[in-house]
Amino acid sequence: MSKPFNPPQRILLGPGPSNVEPRVLQAMMAPLLGHMDPIYFECMDETQTLLRRVFETENRVTLVVPGTGGAGMEACLANLIEDGEEVVVCVSGFFGQRMAELAERWGGKVSRVETEWGQPLDIDKVRETFRKSGARILTMVHAETSTGVRNPIEELKSLREIRDAIFVVDAVTSLGAHPVGIDRNSIDASYSCSQKGLGAPPGLAPVTFSERALEKIRARSKPPRTWYLDIQLLDKYWTTARAYHHTAPALMTYALREALAIVLEEGLEARWKRHERNHRALVAGLESMGLEMLVAPEHRLWSLNTVKIPAGIDDARVRTSLLAHHNIEIGSGLGTLKGKIWRIGLMGSSSTENNVLLLLGALRSVLAEEGYASAR
Amino acid sequence: MSKPFNPPQRILLGPGPSNVEPRVLQAMMAPLLGHMDPIYFECMDETQTLLRRVFETENRVTLVVPGTGGAGMEACLANLIEDGEEVVVCVSGFFGQRMAELAERWGGKVSRVETEWGQPLDIDKVRETFRKSGARILTMVHAETSTGVRNPIEELKSLREIRDAIFVVDAVTSLGAHPVGIDRNSIDASYSCSQKGLGAPPGLAPVTFSERALEKIRARSKPPRTWYLDIQLLDKYWTTARAYHHTAPALMTYALREALAIVLEEGLEARWKRHERNHRALVAGLESMGLEMLVAPEHRLWSLNTVKIPAGIDDARVRTSLLAHHNIEIGSGLGTLKGKIWRIGLMGSSSTENNVLLLLGALRSVLAEEGYASAR
Repeated sequence: MSKPFNPPQRILLGPGPSNVEPRVLQAMMAPLLGHMDPIYFECMDETQTLLRRVFETENRVTLVVPGTGGAGMEACLANLIEDGEEVVVCVSGFFGQRMAELAERWGGKVSRVETEWGQPLDIDKVRETFRKSGARILTMVHAETSTGVRNPIEELKSLREIRDAIFVVDAVTSLGAHPVGIDRNSIDASYSCSQKGLGAPPGLAPVTFSERALEKIRARSKPPRTWYLDIQLLDKYWTTARAYHHTAPALMTYALREALAIVLEEGLEARWKRHERNHRALVAGLESMGLEMLVAPEHRLWSLNTVKIPAGIDDARVRTSLLAHHNIEIGSGLGTLKGKIWRIGLMGSSSTENNVLLLLGALRSVLAEEGYASAR
Repeated sequence: MSKPFNPPQRILLGPGPSNVEPRVLQAMMAPLLGHMDPIYFECMDETQTLLRRVFETENRVTLVVPGTGGAGMEACLANLIEDGEEVVVCVSGFFGQRMAELAERWGGKVSRVETEWGQPLDIDKVRETFRKSGARILTMVHAETSTGVRNPIEELKSLREIRDAIFVVDAVTSLGAHPVGIDRNSIDASYSCSQKGLGAPPGLAPVTFSERALEKIRARSKPPRTWYLDIQLLDKYWTTARAYHHTAPALMTYALREALAIVLEEGLEARWKRHERNHRALVAGLESMGLEMLVAPEHRLWSLNTVKIPAGIDDARVRTSLLAHHNIEIGSGLGTLKGKIWRIGLMGSSSTENNVLLLLGALRSVLAEEGYASAR
């Protein structure tokens, strides 16, 4: 029982988590502080300042939800949606479906705008559905992690002419890897996670809310059921009153603060370019092996690459072999794409030239063992 | 911005977190695994096995909620309570109040059994209220962290004669420090936290559900609103199907696993005795300084000691001085006890003879500076 847990050193090239830099791990070894310690408050303040820059926003309410990305999604939807309220949910994959499911759980009457998995959402179809609906809330997943597609969040603001909308954007697989531009793109609420483009360990969900979103929340006829994710209570702890809410996961906050500092030292533009460059190198390598990408070039994510599994090749055997013999994790398909694609993440500090070369070499070798012709 | 965060080394003697042992910190430095890695599943299995022993239960559904203790409270109440359902909530302090607030948020019609803050709940009053109500769910805080009182959870099972009850117990400040005995005490749902008696960093909430509790949850007319804390989805990931739900906070799980191993190496009985012994030493020292405890001896927690602030002594100045000059954190009073008591935690690896001596010496010195006569 008391044997230490000694996992192998994996190269994490799945849909997240990505590998964590030693500097971030080291930050977690700093002495633990209590959640009401004035020096811990400094760490919170710094984390917020860094997070605003990474989200590209001036939003006062930019803070960290003490849970994973899914808690971020729930925090946004639970606080914004009132019982029986119409919500337009854009669905282009598994995580769009999850948003629809959560919006319904939280009392929303959901109208879906759908697209084929592997395709981006069509903003004209979104506009049409939004116009016909009475919804104020419209949700879109920026980086659809299940398909590898980037959706056109930049075009959301053109829907403002229809009505005073509240745009909710899932930035789980984009923040730190692709431009999100909360203020520039007129996004009202957004959430992400710690373990992908930001390069911290999994466990925290950065969120941001515009003043317009907060007005809607303050005008609720009653508070949301969730106390843990009540954004007004979280805000009171993070910014306005330092009022005790939960016992902060302090070591995780140390890690996120350090990871955000690293993001900004590299620079957002440089970081996005690195993600793009390594994505392009990976795609070139995969295509040179005769493999085919699921998504058209102009809609591909840089952080998550979806490649079709060649006919006759066993999905699980290849992934198991990469893991067991090469210590490389890649992801399986989700939902309707299960068994049809692999998902190769190049996120945060996992997005390196060496990881691209390593993955291509290992995949070539495993596919050859599996009898894949073009891999020879 | 890129300056590392260098907090001072605090002695954590507040209401939690407690200090984390080097072995636990070291466990967090093991290589990060993905949440679907078969070797991570082994870590989850081991964590569950250890957790069952610490909770003293055979409950299959004993797992870790990816959030703090408050998420554990919400997970228990949100899954068990259906809309409009009667719930009896025992309130003997701030955390009993919080349970009542959450039970109401989650649709419960709450009947409170109250007691004066600093007193334990009277099981006869509880029985009377429960008998008059139509409630199946009855909740009690074991260790009321706001008052330092231990409530009689051992007597709950005598209420089974009234009806087929579901007992929900808050074990946040007791697990790992006091006997909780889930099965022995016939408790149906319970939650705790990682950062107190268990000695891991804050951020996780161990929970356990009896088969009786699960039957009630499975019989719900619709699922709870919360997706993040839906215990049936969490169970599918933890035990039955390894179905992806959230990206596990893996490094935190490593830490909790190691902390639980340490708890069991020490042995539950030995650990409880250590907590009792250091509590008694602290009380003897405080009383020798002329200070007075809030709670009668037979109802005191070993993990959290509440001492009255002497007349004329400034609450905040003393706590600030302990923190700034001695690097010792103690807690302030909450709610109606704010300004009236200090809360001195002796939990997990913070519960040591040396910490008792250190705190007594530092408090004596600070009180003397503040002009407290008996401290000289």
